[in-house]
Amino acid sequence: MHFSSTLIEKGVEAFSSLPGIGKKTALRLVLYLLKQDNTFTERFSDALLKMRRDIRTCDQCHNLSDDPICRICTDQRRDSSLVCVVENIRDLMAIEDTGQFRGVYHVLGGVISPIDGIGPDELTIERLVARCEHGGIQEVIMAISPTIEGETTVFYLAKRIKPLGVQVSSIARGVAFGGDLEYADEITLGRSIIARTPYGD
Amino acid sequence: MHFSSTLIEKGVEAFSSLPGIGKKTALRLVLYLLKQDNTFTERFSDALLKMRRDIRTCDQCHNLSDDPICRICTDQRRDSSLVCVVENIRDLMAIEDTGQFRGVYHVLGGVISPIDGIGPDELTIERLVARCEHGGIQEVIMAISPTIEGETTVFYLAKRIKPLGVQVSSIARGVAFGGDLEYADEITLGRSIIARTPYGD
Repeated sequence: MHFSSTLIEKGVEAFSSLPGIGKKTALRLVLYLLKQDNTFTERFSDALLKMRRDIRTCDQCHNLSDDPICRICTDQRRDSSLVCVVENIRDLMAIEDTGQFRGVYHVLGGVISPIDGIGPDELTIERLVARCEHGGIQEVIMAISPTIEGETTVFYLAKRIKPLGVQVSSIARGVAFGGDLEYADEITLGRSIIARTPYGD
Repeated sequence: MHFSSTLIEKGVEAFSSLPGIGKKTALRLVLYLLKQDNTFTERFSDALLKMRRDIRTCDQCHNLSDDPICRICTDQRRDSSLVCVVENIRDLMAIEDTGQFRGVYHVLGGVISPIDGIGPDELTIERLVARCEHGGIQEVIMAISPTIEGETTVFYLAKRIKPLGVQVSSIARGVAFGGDLEYADEITLGRSIIARTPYGD
C-alpha cells in the first residue's frame, strides 16, 4: 500500500496493530476518522485511554472493575455464598449474559498448564482458597474448559477447597439445546449418556 | 452484553462506533488493549489524534497530505503535465498501488449528483480548471466511476477543460485481465467490443 502521507501511514499502522485488523480495514477506519470532526477521534481516544489507565481488578474476585470491589461483588441482591470459578472475564461475561446465575464469581486468570509455565501460583488460586477459608461460601461451581489443563485445574482446586467444607460442582455438559445428535462430537455425546438426568427433573 | 465495568462499556462503545465493528469485535479489541501495557494504548491513541489533528489537503491536488503541498505533487520525478482525476483518496491509492502512473493527481471529492445536492461547487472542479488555465498541463486522464453521475461529471469537466487546449482522456474499461468472458457483465463486455484495440498494440 502506497501512502502519500506519513500521518495516514501511522494511523493505518496503529489500527492494524490490533488483532484481526488488516491493512485494508485499517485504512477504511482511518478514512472514516478523517471524515468525522476532530472531536470524534478525541472522544474515541479518551474513552480508550481512560479505560486503560483506570481499569483495575476486583480485590475479591479478580474480575475487571472500575472500583476496588467490582459491581457484581458489591451487589447485595446476589448470593455471595455461591461462587462460580471462570478462567477469564470473557467466560464471566458469557455466563452473565445468560441471566441465569445470581451468585458471584472468581476469575482464575487461566488454567494450570505446566507446558506454558503456568502453575497454581500464576493464577488467583490462593485468593480463592482464602475466600473459602474466610467462610460464608457454601458452593463453588467450576465453569472451566473441559481440556486436560482445565480438568487438572478443577482437580487441584477441588482438592484444596473440599477439605474446607465447601461443596464443589461443575457446570453440566452435554448435547446443546437445539443441537442435532448426529452433529454432536463423540465425547460430548458419550458423556451426555453417562451423565443422563431423570426425565421430568 | 453485560458489563460489570463502565470503563469497559465505554471502551466497547468507542470501538463499535467505528464502521464494520460490532460489539463482539469491540470487546475483543478492548480485552486486547487491557492485556497490553498502558503505553500500547497511549501510542495507539497518539497516532490517531496526531493524524486527525495535523492532516490537511494538498493545496494543489486536494489529496490528503502532511504538508501544504503533498508528497506526490512535490516529487520532481513525476510528470506534472499529466493529471489523473479521481473521486477520492481511495481511488488515488489504488492507482498508486499499480505503480503504473507517474503523473500527478486531482482529487475531486466526489461526483456531480444533483439528487444528493452535490453540484460542481461542492467539488474541487474550479481548482482543476484553474490548474489547467495556469498552464503546464497537457493531458487530463479521467479515472471516474462509469455511473450516470460519473459520466455526467466527466462530460462537465471535459466541456470546461478541452477549450483550454488540454487533452482529455479516460482510463480504459473492458474485461479484466484473467477474467472469463462468461462472467463479465453485459455492459462491460458490450463496450469492450465497441472499444476494441488493434491486435499487437
